[in-house]
Amino acid sequence: MSRLCVHTITTKPLNLDQCLVEFPKRGISGITIWRQALEGRELATVKRQIADSGMEIVSLCRGGFFPSSTAAGRRAAIDDNLLAIEQANAIGAPLIVLVCGAVPGLSLMESRKQIADGIAAVLPAAEQAGVKLAIEPLHPMYADDRSAVNTMRQAHEICDALGSPKMLGIAVDVYHVWWDPELKEQINHAGRTGRLQAFHICDWKTPTTDLLNDRGLMGEGCINIRQISDWVDATGFTGHREVEIFSHKWWSGDQGEFLDQITSSYARLYA
Amino acid sequence: MSRLCVHTITTKPLNLDQCLVEFPKRGISGITIWRQALEGRELATVKRQIADSGMEIVSLCRGGFFPSSTAAGRRAAIDDNLLAIEQANAIGAPLIVLVCGAVPGLSLMESRKQIADGIAAVLPAAEQAGVKLAIEPLHPMYADDRSAVNTMRQAHEICDALGSPKMLGIAVDVYHVWWDPELKEQINHAGRTGRLQAFHICDWKTPTTDLLNDRGLMGEGCINIRQISDWVDATGFTGHREVEIFSHKWWSGDQGEFLDQITSSYARLYA
Repeated sequence: MSRLCVHTITTKPLNLDQCLVEFPKRGISGITIWRQALEGRELATVKRQIADSGMEIVSLCRGGFFPSSTAAGRRAAIDDNLLAIEQANAIGAPLIVLVCGAVPGLSLMESRKQIADGIAAVLPAAEQAGVKLAIEPLHPMYADDRSAVNTMRQAHEICDALGSPKMLGIAVDVYHVWWDPELKEQINHAGRTGRLQAFHICDWKTPTTDLLNDRGLMGEGCINIRQISDWVDATGFTGHREVEIFSHKWWSGDQGEFLDQITSSYARLYA
Repeated sequence: MSRLCVHTITTKPLNLDQCLVEFPKRGISGITIWRQALEGRELATVKRQIADSGMEIVSLCRGGFFPSSTAAGRRAAIDDNLLAIEQANAIGAPLIVLVCGAVPGLSLMESRKQIADGIAAVLPAAEQAGVKLAIEPLHPMYADDRSAVNTMRQAHEICDALGSPKMLGIAVDVYHVWWDPELKEQINHAGRTGRLQAFHICDWKTPTTDLLNDRGLMGEGCINIRQISDWVDATGFTGHREVEIFSHKWWSGDQGEFLDQITSSYARLYA
């Protein structure tokens, strides 16, 4: 349990105060906070509350969404990422996960260029604040409007193009990359380059009835999570395994029972 | 219109007789027949009906689905592909499109091996019949239960592993591969190696509400179909552009009007 982290979005019906009670009660040792959970809260207070909960804050989700068809849109995205860096710094989160963005109608090539430009624009602030940024490659089914970065290889290419900044890495989410025939090799490369910053787990259900909100609890689907996890650990990664599940099904039930299922399926996975 | 082909599945509510009337009436010059449209029909008669319609038969859809967790399942898949080759030969179809298959719980590595083995097992019959086989890489969102071959690179690797047989090629469907950062390079490679056997078009809608049956008519989505089509043509490909759309929305309307929309959107695309 010392490496189990849960995202606040996973138990979306719970507010942050409830997460800070319900997670540690079950031995969950890490929390990743989604920015909507911070709305209307004083960030110094949140930082103290997290410390009081005994949990470690693993990351802030999410920055990114850099591409836009207008310069004003790109500027607004950079401003929002600068704000996320301030928020992460204020609550003590060492990392921000970047969902890079895409715009239907904008070419993927152009989106990828704007993503690299956007990251370059906010990197100095990230360095200043001591907050790392992690590019999360998203499943290709999100290439229309969520991310033009759809493989670990592409994430590495952006890191390379920006000169391999120390504060820039990659977040590996099994849901997005499990199908990739290059996965093991790209994970190894992330280890060698010090870019492996975060590891997210959930499962792929058959059938999947919703592109966004039908992710499975570990064990409900076909992903060989343990194998991917072992590849990640073999690089020397010792960080948290973060449970990030978007699911209308799970959100509609009792969240305490859902958390019990999360801890038991996690325990089975790493038995 | 001399290169416009429509799949029978695109106008699923129409039976084959209706397709053979409604397609050529609108100047559509090619037809790809899905095997369910052949059920209960005498194949020599179908061959004559197609000839009478004035259309060219472009391919038979679909073979494949090779992986299975049992030897009996793999044998049944091979038998079914041998039957498809007989059917293609009987109706005069020069090509069978392969949706390679995947089984939840079977590793992707194992599925890929079984796919290569399955293709190897049916290739002699394909050569004998003079029917080509085309591997269709499927979008990664189908890696659970439809295809463990999700990129053109992987399709090329299977062709390479089998010794680049003359009768084995690749079918490029924009819906499945539009997101791939290597797409142009892999299409070029398919041209150089003589593997580019078929080109399918439709569009990716935002939002997509169903993983299987919410494909768009050309122009309804974000794929730069014309650019991909130009890359295909630049290899020397002069075959049909095949409209393959699975859509609850379009299937629920008048199919004659849908065919009118197909021809007009095709005309706009290639104006």
